[in-house]
Amino acid sequence: MSSTLSRALSEIGRAVDSDQLITDPDVCASYASDESEVTPRPPDAVVRARSEADVVAVMAACTRHGVFVTPRAGGTGRTGGAVPVQGGIVLAFEGMHEIQEIHRGDLVAVVQPGVVLGRLHEAVEAEGLFYGPDPNSLSTCALGGNLAENAGGPRAFKYGVTRDWTLGMDVVTADGTPLRLGKRTVKGVTGYDLAALVVGSEGTLAVITRATLKLIPKPESVATLLALLPDVHAAGRAVNALVKLGIVPRCLELLDSYTLDLVRPAVAFAIPEQARAALLVELDGSIGTCELDLERAGNAIQAIGALEVLVARHGGERARLWEARRELSRALRRSARFKLAEDVVVPKSQIPALLEARDRISERFAIAMPTYGHAGDGNLHVNFLWNDASEEPTVHAAIEALFRAVVALEGTLSGEHGIGVLKAPYLALEQSAQLIDWQKRIKALFDPKGILNPGKIFAPAEHRAC
Amino acid sequence: MSSTLSRALSEIGRAVDSDQLITDPDVCASYASDESEVTPRPPDAVVRARSEADVVAVMAACTRHGVFVTPRAGGTGRTGGAVPVQGGIVLAFEGMHEIQEIHRGDLVAVVQPGVVLGRLHEAVEAEGLFYGPDPNSLSTCALGGNLAENAGGPRAFKYGVTRDWTLGMDVVTADGTPLRLGKRTVKGVTGYDLAALVVGSEGTLAVITRATLKLIPKPESVATLLALLPDVHAAGRAVNALVKLGIVPRCLELLDSYTLDLVRPAVAFAIPEQARAALLVELDGSIGTCELDLERAGNAIQAIGALEVLVARHGGERARLWEARRELSRALRRSARFKLAEDVVVPKSQIPALLEARDRISERFAIAMPTYGHAGDGNLHVNFLWNDASEEPTVHAAIEALFRAVVALEGTLSGEHGIGVLKAPYLALEQSAQLIDWQKRIKALFDPKGILNPGKIFAPAEHRAC
Repeated sequence: MSSTLSRALSEIGRAVDSDQLITDPDVCASYASDESEVTPRPPDAVVRARSEADVVAVMAACTRHGVFVTPRAGGTGRTGGAVPVQGGIVLAFEGMHEIQEIHRGDLVAVVQPGVVLGRLHEAVEAEGLFYGPDPNSLSTCALGGNLAENAGGPRAFKYGVTRDWTLGMDVVTADGTPLRLGKRTVKGVTGYDLAALVVGSEGTLAVITRATLKLIPKPESVATLLALLPDVHAAGRAVNALVKLGIVPRCLELLDSYTLDLVRPAVAFAIPEQARAALLVELDGSIGTCELDLERAGNAIQAIGALEVLVARHGGERARLWEARRELSRALRRSARFKLAEDVVVPKSQIPALLEARDRISERFAIAMPTYGHAGDGNLHVNFLWNDASEEPTVHAAIEALFRAVVALEGTLSGEHGIGVLKAPYLALEQSAQLIDWQKRIKALFDPKGILNPGKIFAPAEHRAC
Repeated sequence: MSSTLSRALSEIGRAVDSDQLITDPDVCASYASDESEVTPRPPDAVVRARSEADVVAVMAACTRHGVFVTPRAGGTGRTGGAVPVQGGIVLAFEGMHEIQEIHRGDLVAVVQPGVVLGRLHEAVEAEGLFYGPDPNSLSTCALGGNLAENAGGPRAFKYGVTRDWTLGMDVVTADGTPLRLGKRTVKGVTGYDLAALVVGSEGTLAVITRATLKLIPKPESVATLLALLPDVHAAGRAVNALVKLGIVPRCLELLDSYTLDLVRPAVAFAIPEQARAALLVELDGSIGTCELDLERAGNAIQAIGALEVLVARHGGERARLWEARRELSRALRRSARFKLAEDVVVPKSQIPALLEARDRISERFAIAMPTYGHAGDGNLHVNFLWNDASEEPTVHAAIEALFRAVVALEGTLSGEHGIGVLKAPYLALEQSAQLIDWQKRIKALFDPKGILNPGKIFAPAEHRAC
């Protein structure tokens, strides 16, 4: 153990209870990775925070002694945000898991960063309220990570992403200063919106210790519709037809022909062979509204040439239709030894162009690239499947080709997963040198010693060493 | 003219056309004020920008020579954001008024900062699309100012504020560096969200030259309901009843008894004497939805004890009900020689408590304080009326007392108007010294010479001199 680390740990040890500071290698090893393909690296120590004061003590000690800190909530990230790639301390938030308040009158929830998202959904829905963001990992991901990564999910077309639901946050800066950012109200223009800056900054600017989130009344009713279509162009026409009717579905999930082939044998209903694309549409609203919109949406999608439109109004039936979408991840994993998934975004009108680019890249590099995702917001999950480890460099070349195509279509490299470690080498494909430089200046302002979540967003070679 | 100013102007003169750089005192005088009570001060020169290149030239020259720059779009601000309080150059955007793109498929609009908001509304609605923010000044305010101030409006309860509709922005930094911030898609988590930071920064961090805004399908139908109520507590119960039904009106406007008395003689329908509060509810959605929600909302509000519920489904009838709200500003101005309006926000459940605090302050300082505003988001416009100029110090004491009450109720000083010049002395009532210090560090990072919109947000004494 380096002397700077041991000095920091002994300072932290005086501030927290003995069971909160852990250097046991087995425990440290369990904090070495998240749900990404980033090479695991165990931290030198783990501190399990129980209060803002613990976080202040850790940050102050680590800034003083120049020790790296990687904050971690659920550890379900997909780009390595919670992996302590340069060692040091993991600051773990599973012990701060209180829903401190759900206020019907004010339509807000106040949560600690370790609250698992699914638990928040249940708690607010039990009160007749609703929180929008719903990343697929909702049963295991935690709010701290959702805020750090600005998590989205299928419902983002109608309900937006985590930033849109964040009113205020308590954070601790790299040097251990606690700040109360934002507000408890939807409106509020008092000073700079630092909360909006910290959301999505991947734990590199400040550590989140509490958040005040916006809620809305829970939609009374939800209905689901699965359209089986002759091709992806029909999916584009269907989306445009809904827009024309003024209908904003909460989810608009697209499956391409490859992913449809994968789920065809696994689902409980027949998907005809001619179906080369599917669109899963979910509507919500008051009971009458939902029924009416379902009928109008169904008719419109039928009219643009759907092969079949399946409709579900209740829990069990709806789950049956979602099965096709839910089954995908498992089916993809079964279909090849290796899999990487990118979550690129293009403007909605460019979805067909992106799928054509995907076809060209898939053929050129001879890598299978099944694609599905959120047609409403242009956020597509492009998967790369291969069976021979030696193909990995080819896969990386294909990924870079995909990113170049996305940028050419005025898209962005990541819709939900963040840059983290995995996409850092590609940041300059999308952003100008000046813009990256400005972001580094902001990083240096918030964290002059570069101790907070090192190795993320900015490519390692360029990252300020501690 | 100082030598630094003349050097800057001669540099700018080489970069722009001769009719763009104006030093004529009469023209300069027309840029001396906005729609606030801030003391007018003419700039030394005006530059009418026609392109990003013009803005780059102005900022580079002014940073080089240390000359103040105050950006100005519509000039309709309410806290002095566009007033050149320290002289220098006004950088005017009325010449950059193009709607460059309205894209149905992508649901985006691309606009220059001089576009008047009402014109954008008309243009997107002609395409069957919709842009949410609707500050009352919409027929004269421009997008550049909307973005700088993070403008809201009555529809914010359902549709949020300007930041929620901003996907990307082109900006020019104080030193003349053009940056492309954000994206063209709703999702996108590539790097820090500097666009979210610049929105609402009141022209103090960077100059906005273009924005990509989110659009949604235009709601098919709108209906309006005016509830006349026995007191403001009934208004609170009505709002809760709607939330319980899962109905999210796009507007929820509250009038207190004082403002109701003011409009009673001016409107075309009878407002009974027993009515001591009114709630104007506006619903939108597809035709069937809207009709259904209107009926349910009407029944619910009747059930909580409304004296009368008036309903309007069509343009003319709706305008008649809005008349009560629209008439207010004029009626208030007629009712006293002097008027100041604050736009405080409290959590929704604290609206009655704020109105009680208002009553105590009004009595203590003997100043009339009629109040109306957006009950859905807790943003209330508290007016101060007086007739004798010598009462002004009393009014300022009453304003400070109001701000203290708002902060004690976990509210915020400004919901829509920003801090500007007028609220700068009060910033420390709401925010900690550390938080203000962090904001100043960000200001110093973006604008090290302090030339960009000086004298705004931070109290003048503390503001970095150029």
